[in-house]
Amino acid sequence: MTTLQQLEHTDAFVARHIGPSDADVSAMLAVLGLDSLDQLTTQTVPADILRADPLPLPGAIPEHVALAELAGIAGKNVLARSFIGLGYHPTLTPNVILRNVTENPGWYTAYTPYQAEIAQGRLEALLNFQQMVIDMTGLELANASLLDEATAAAEAMAMARRVSKARGQVFFVDSQVLPQTFDVLKTRAAEFGFELVSGHPEEAVNHELFGALFQYPGADGEVSDLSTYIAAAQQKGAIVTVAADILALALLKSPGEMGADIAVGTTQRFGIPMGFGGPHAAYFASRDAHKRSTPGRLIGVSIDARGKRALRMALQTREQHIRREKANSNICTSQVLLANMAGFFATYHGPAGIKRIAARVHRLACLFADGVRASGGHVASQTFFDTVRVQTGAATESVLATARVAGYNLRRVDAGTVAVAFHEVATGADVVELVRFVTGKTVDVAALDARVADQFPAALKRESAYLTHPVFNSHHSETEMMRYLKKLQNRDLALDHAMIPLGSCTMKLNAASEMTPITWPAFGGVHPFAPRDQVQGYLELVDGLSEQLKAITGFDAISLQPNSGAQGEYAGLLCIRRYLDSKGQQARRICLIPTSAHGTNPASAQMMGMEVVPVACDDNGNIDVADLKAKAEQYRDTLACLMLTYPSTHGVFEAAIRDIIDTVHAHGGQVYFDGANLNALVGLVRPADIGADVSHMNLHKTFCIPHGGGGPGVGPIGMKAHLAPFAPNHAVTPIANGSEGQSAVSAAPFGSASILPISWMYIRMMGGAGLRRATQVALLSANYVARRLEGAYPILYRDANGRVAHECIVDLRPLKAETGITEVDVAKRLMDYGFHAPTMSFPVAGTIMIEPTESESRAELERFIDALLAIREEIRKVGDGEWPRDDNPLKHAPHSIADVTGEWTRPYPREQGLFPLPYVAENKFWPFVNRIDDVYGDRNLVCSCPPMSEYQ
Amino acid sequence: MTTLQQLEHTDAFVARHIGPSDADVSAMLAVLGLDSLDQLTTQTVPADILRADPLPLPGAIPEHVALAELAGIAGKNVLARSFIGLGYHPTLTPNVILRNVTENPGWYTAYTPYQAEIAQGRLEALLNFQQMVIDMTGLELANASLLDEATAAAEAMAMARRVSKARGQVFFVDSQVLPQTFDVLKTRAAEFGFELVSGHPEEAVNHELFGALFQYPGADGEVSDLSTYIAAAQQKGAIVTVAADILALALLKSPGEMGADIAVGTTQRFGIPMGFGGPHAAYFASRDAHKRSTPGRLIGVSIDARGKRALRMALQTREQHIRREKANSNICTSQVLLANMAGFFATYHGPAGIKRIAARVHRLACLFADGVRASGGHVASQTFFDTVRVQTGAATESVLATARVAGYNLRRVDAGTVAVAFHEVATGADVVELVRFVTGKTVDVAALDARVADQFPAALKRESAYLTHPVFNSHHSETEMMRYLKKLQNRDLALDHAMIPLGSCTMKLNAASEMTPITWPAFGGVHPFAPRDQVQGYLELVDGLSEQLKAITGFDAISLQPNSGAQGEYAGLLCIRRYLDSKGQQARRICLIPTSAHGTNPASAQMMGMEVVPVACDDNGNIDVADLKAKAEQYRDTLACLMLTYPSTHGVFEAAIRDIIDTVHAHGGQVYFDGANLNALVGLVRPADIGADVSHMNLHKTFCIPHGGGGPGVGPIGMKAHLAPFAPNHAVTPIANGSEGQSAVSAAPFGSASILPISWMYIRMMGGAGLRRATQVALLSANYVARRLEGAYPILYRDANGRVAHECIVDLRPLKAETGITEVDVAKRLMDYGFHAPTMSFPVAGTIMIEPTESESRAELERFIDALLAIREEIRKVGDGEWPRDDNPLKHAPHSIADVTGEWTRPYPREQGLFPLPYVAENKFWPFVNRIDDVYGDRNLVCSCPPMSEYQ
Repeated sequence: MTTLQQLEHTDAFVARHIGPSDADVSAMLAVLGLDSLDQLTTQTVPADILRADPLPLPGAIPEHVALAELAGIAGKNVLARSFIGLGYHPTLTPNVILRNVTENPGWYTAYTPYQAEIAQGRLEALLNFQQMVIDMTGLELANASLLDEATAAAEAMAMARRVSKARGQVFFVDSQVLPQTFDVLKTRAAEFGFELVSGHPEEAVNHELFGALFQYPGADGEVSDLSTYIAAAQQKGAIVTVAADILALALLKSPGEMGADIAVGTTQRFGIPMGFGGPHAAYFASRDAHKRSTPGRLIGVSIDARGKRALRMALQTREQHIRREKANSNICTSQVLLANMAGFFATYHGPAGIKRIAARVHRLACLFADGVRASGGHVASQTFFDTVRVQTGAATESVLATARVAGYNLRRVDAGTVAVAFHEVATGADVVELVRFVTGKTVDVAALDARVADQFPAALKRESAYLTHPVFNSHHSETEMMRYLKKLQNRDLALDHAMIPLGSCTMKLNAASEMTPITWPAFGGVHPFAPRDQVQGYLELVDGLSEQLKAITGFDAISLQPNSGAQGEYAGLLCIRRYLDSKGQQARRICLIPTSAHGTNPASAQMMGMEVVPVACDDNGNIDVADLKAKAEQYRDTLACLMLTYPSTHGVFEAAIRDIIDTVHAHGGQVYFDGANLNALVGLVRPADIGADVSHMNLHKTFCIPHGGGGPGVGPIGMKAHLAPFAPNHAVTPIANGSEGQSAVSAAPFGSASILPISWMYIRMMGGAGLRRATQVALLSANYVARRLEGAYPILYRDANGRVAHECIVDLRPLKAETGITEVDVAKRLMDYGFHAPTMSFPVAGTIMIEPTESESRAELERFIDALLAIREEIRKVGDGEWPRDDNPLKHAPHSIADVTGEWTRPYPREQGLFPLPYVAENKFWPFVNRIDDVYGDRNLVCSCPPMSEYQ
Repeated sequence: MTTLQQLEHTDAFVARHIGPSDADVSAMLAVLGLDSLDQLTTQTVPADILRADPLPLPGAIPEHVALAELAGIAGKNVLARSFIGLGYHPTLTPNVILRNVTENPGWYTAYTPYQAEIAQGRLEALLNFQQMVIDMTGLELANASLLDEATAAAEAMAMARRVSKARGQVFFVDSQVLPQTFDVLKTRAAEFGFELVSGHPEEAVNHELFGALFQYPGADGEVSDLSTYIAAAQQKGAIVTVAADILALALLKSPGEMGADIAVGTTQRFGIPMGFGGPHAAYFASRDAHKRSTPGRLIGVSIDARGKRALRMALQTREQHIRREKANSNICTSQVLLANMAGFFATYHGPAGIKRIAARVHRLACLFADGVRASGGHVASQTFFDTVRVQTGAATESVLATARVAGYNLRRVDAGTVAVAFHEVATGADVVELVRFVTGKTVDVAALDARVADQFPAALKRESAYLTHPVFNSHHSETEMMRYLKKLQNRDLALDHAMIPLGSCTMKLNAASEMTPITWPAFGGVHPFAPRDQVQGYLELVDGLSEQLKAITGFDAISLQPNSGAQGEYAGLLCIRRYLDSKGQQARRICLIPTSAHGTNPASAQMMGMEVVPVACDDNGNIDVADLKAKAEQYRDTLACLMLTYPSTHGVFEAAIRDIIDTVHAHGGQVYFDGANLNALVGLVRPADIGADVSHMNLHKTFCIPHGGGGPGVGPIGMKAHLAPFAPNHAVTPIANGSEGQSAVSAAPFGSASILPISWMYIRMMGGAGLRRATQVALLSANYVARRLEGAYPILYRDANGRVAHECIVDLRPLKAETGITEVDVAKRLMDYGFHAPTMSFPVAGTIMIEPTESESRAELERFIDALLAIREEIRKVGDGEWPRDDNPLKHAPHSIADVTGEWTRPYPREQGLFPLPYVAENKFWPFVNRIDDVYGDRNLVCSCPPMSEYQ
């Protein structure tokens, strides 16, 4: 008899998430000479840190039960009609984009397009985004998105400092800048040592400034021509940034036309739900002259080995992982999925559609203003795009309350003023309601409509064209749009096709049940500054996820504000900095970083005004404890912190971890724990338990938020209690967590709030035991891959028991020396086998780092191993002289559709090139281009759609 | 100044739905020498039927407004916890299937897999479905689904008649058959002239029967071994069908093991939402000996031109379009999308998972029964799987009411009995509640669980294995499942890749906004027999769509019950038959059908006991009016009706339409109007206005329900008032429409209710003017294609003005005579250009019929035209002897991935084969196999997964 209890299978999801079946696990253990996962664990994880108890989390629940629980939470959000504005507006996501991009794993499970040959789809989408930004801002160059408008402004400030020859340390900020932007600038400027001065743009020239930021339209809604102020500031050597509303630019003279050096802003209102503040894609545009100083990723045009046009990320040497401690930006993740959505919004609407949306928004604002005036109200605004201020005087609070009861959120500007920001979703009926709230009178919109004239003075009107490229003028029917999206998707390899074994990136399953809630309107339709009683669902989600993360990491407090891993690093160091300052230990500015660290570590430290001191690694890839102790001793009075990745970036559980941490503490330093490799720890080791003071977690790695093709990421931090009062807070909507008054690191109070359900669902469906098993299987799979490959390739770095952690490093340097075949050749050749390459040359040049994760089935692991073994055999043929060093399947990889036809003169058969193993033809992935010439692209930098002449 | 009114753009969706832009329309008109769409219309549509007034429909509204309106309607459905059973059970659709299949246009926009080379993905999925049915039923052969369990039972009855040598006309039906099944059998039997006798299975042998149908478990929930009754009936020459619950078969001895000839049932509870009754996939399994008599589509294994295993629809000659008036089945559409979902449900859960679900359902039922007994209640059931009857006596109504107030629906069996049917979604907590409803006592489920033993007697227990094929044992992690779905999807060409210009099939846009609502739980979670007050949303939807369709067609009444086009034909003729019978005109049995008609027409007439008399067509493809008049005169006393397709299947608006209709009416006949070509009429001509008495409409053609890869279809009928009292109604939940008491044609009262939102949304977003414009553009596109092709190919059939209607027929016979290149060669060659073939050899052998629909952009039309022109040039080369008649790109088409490698010895370059035009390489679709050998497959019929030996 089988009881109901036995049949309940509440942990069914665990087996869905974990790739290998129980039988597979046993078989893999057997290959490793092991009996159980626990045996592997005790061999791999140092005994002095391995946790015995289960995680203090509720048990696993089935997918539908978790979804019902979350729906209950979401239901506590109240969806009001939002007219708050301030950078967040209701918008209509076209359903063809929602269904075919946002809800399609072909788009959201892709990785950052480093392997450009199998990423031409999203690279084209991002190029469209860049072109859209170039067009709308009137500047010459745009990057492929930043995290949010506030951090984009902060990046502009940092870039101004890099570029400007002015010697002053003042960064001038328009007093009409969005308040959350000012808050983030405050944080950054303080640590950079800049002086932040706020005032009317005309006052900028009164200061010794290196840069200025003007808001257009201002936070108060006013629009004016900034040309004079820009020119004046530039006269003094300043680099001038304009933060502009991208929709307003459809009607208004562009920042470029006004002479700005840089333009920044959010593209949220191009079809991205407000989502309680994010994620959204910020844009960043600049002058061509500054292209090599522009932060973030830049998509550029190059050519492939056959001379065909091909896209890829340009100027990658600018990235933080190259500049390291010289960087004053640690930007790593961008917001690819959101940037793509915004770009597709423009693609689908085209110039006429975008202009119509903007004109309609503006017209609604005009009708409202006139309606208020006609009803005896006092309109404070003069020239506006979408936001109208009304002097409501003593009635202000009652106006706001009346509106709220009717389901409308207005903005309280001050005790006597409200503002109303119109948007794509607003209607004429809203105008009637809104006029009634502020004046008590009912207006006739049709009558207003017949009477009210257009608003803008001629000098402000945009005359220049935008979105003129064919891509913005060819996909206006849903059928064409759907096919365009599918065409691009087909060019990209994502997790829905094959394993993406990127070491340190943890490309695991992003389950449909985790992804479903993020497109629920109850999460999408919430303004980040909505009244607290309307956002109880979000607050419960935030609390719930925070409690989950505390249970997993052992920390006392969590901040969900950082909206990328690098941002998390910054926030974590910020807490340390503020804590040390609060103790009067301003002198502690030394940040110890092992040489193996990810490039964001030194960049983040540099941005915090810390001095980076490298700590050596020994031959096994472990931190050289003697060197650490020596450095700690040497800097005992100035030591701020150690930044530590664990397991190490070499993929090993260092045995000395406790000693390392104790040493730092003993010398007055804090321990920053980089959570990049947290997937090797969950359920086994808690960072806080072993002494970490603060750590960021990559929810987009360990906790199943998909990489989205290169973003969004989420990088919350966990803190010990002594650091919690220094966590980022928020100027507009303070977070009740004990750190009130601290300035922010991101625009929104909880960063990328709308994708937090993904991690919540994951943890809720796995339960403590499921999470622990996932970690154990991740360790098993990495060790299994290492064992199966070790006969063919040297495996670098193992622990004393010969084990790796959750990833393994395959050393290709001996083969390169012997045959000329490089790690790049191997990576490109893997595409021909249908796989995405592992991480290349990190942390060791000339190697590849494989992280299979727990989600890959044994069958997929075997296919991948077979591919690498077959490649080894190919390398052997090169080594043996069977194939020339420069004319073999590896050097010609990847083989694209262009290799199908034409004369075949190579020393290996076409079949060997295209279908090197039998399984390939069953599910062939076709790279759209051959190997891309990066050097050509960087030498001939083009980061926009082809000129119109090419279309003729 | 641009006013708000001008900016509102409430008809924005019209331009999304219609492919050509205004500029494109002008350019296309210019090519035709026309100034306006209205000019084209007046040239094309006979003046005496062209409607002057706009359709009496509300104006177009934007997508988000329509969605909000529909959400309001959906919100009026009350989602109770359903324990009603009777063939409809709550189930959990795995989210990986929901997201990647149900909500993915790559799956739902595909057509029926007639072009098998570009449909290997869904063919494999359907083969899995067949294998699943074979396994679960224990029979040797299964088809690829039927419409619902009731019609599957009716098909079994018809097949029994075809196969049985017994002379009796009795079809014996188990008194425990589902009531809706009995209702449909009643309808069919009456028109076939069978006598339907109901009783206990043991009574079957008392009758002169040709067939019998037993239910397993019975409607009352009882399970017993049917072997004896089956054998006894078979002794008398009867063909015995068992209608079985597929989930129960995971635990119970299968119909095959009990000796049944046929098994039928629904697969709804394998992951398909109840959806107020449909659509769901019914299964139909039979003995190998009867394979050529099995109704519906059968997927079979064959080989391609290179000898590679390839799938395709087998034995197509059995289909109604070949047998025509000899058919006693008119089955055309199946339920591919739902069958695929059910098959994937089994793939994802595997044998152990399916067994666990079944065991859990059964255990819940056992606990409930024991709990009721323990609480003093009276359990009437003896041996059951999931359904337990309780004698509630006088308390029955109050028990039901108490449950309903608590949010539970139970089944009222009779005045003194309720039944409770358990299912996948039920829980132990439900058991407690349910026991409380019927006994007032609270039980402890854990205590029951520890005590209650298993139920089934050993003789009933299933011992045989099922789902043993690797496909059911390899995809149990979500990652593997997602990739399997993607792999299959990549093998299929659907509307998300290219135009599917199938004449008469109207493959138009299925917009995301139309598709979104069908997966809303408020539509999915409703049992078709739920109390009326809980289904107000559905009833409003049904009324709303009916009103829309009345406005469009002019009819007085609509029945939404028929769940396919052929079913609609049957229902329409049924109304005529019943009407004539009610007038004492039983003798009127002649059905006139033009020779050009679709094969379902004569098949439907045959099923109605009518005698088909063909009416000739003239050289222009029009009905030969003289012949019609002669036949009408000849059969003036026996004429039942004319079945008429308009515009004709030749794609022309016949000018004599009024004369034709008047002639039939004058001779006492009714006019059945086949709505297959309604997309050429909407907004221009209303069938009822020109005299039609009844018509079916293909919502899956004209009204945007996607083809789903071969179903679901929806075929409602519109009727004049005199026929309305004879419309199908429902035995379980009578429809309040004046036809109460009439028996049904489908299992559910409103057929495929859960997909009706698609058509509702379409009509609501288009408005009357938008619908009219869509029709006009459909006419324009067809005429444009005809004009552009006419220099290269003869275009058959035009009207007096030289115009075609919404499709055009390209005559390939002269080229075939000249070069040996056939219509099949052209169809297969189009695949190499990335297109799905047009309809082949219908209505004229040796031709292709192109229907571009209004949704295709001009750019896509040009690509398609370019392809056909390039193919014409290829044919010329064959004709000129440049290429041999048997060795050229047309005869070798399609070129598959297998043509990429290997020696190339053909007289044309590989590039010509694979990339015949430059645009192909931009978005190459790769057929997964070469041309499939149909004859081989039919001679070596295999309709199941490969034997296990092949996997070794």
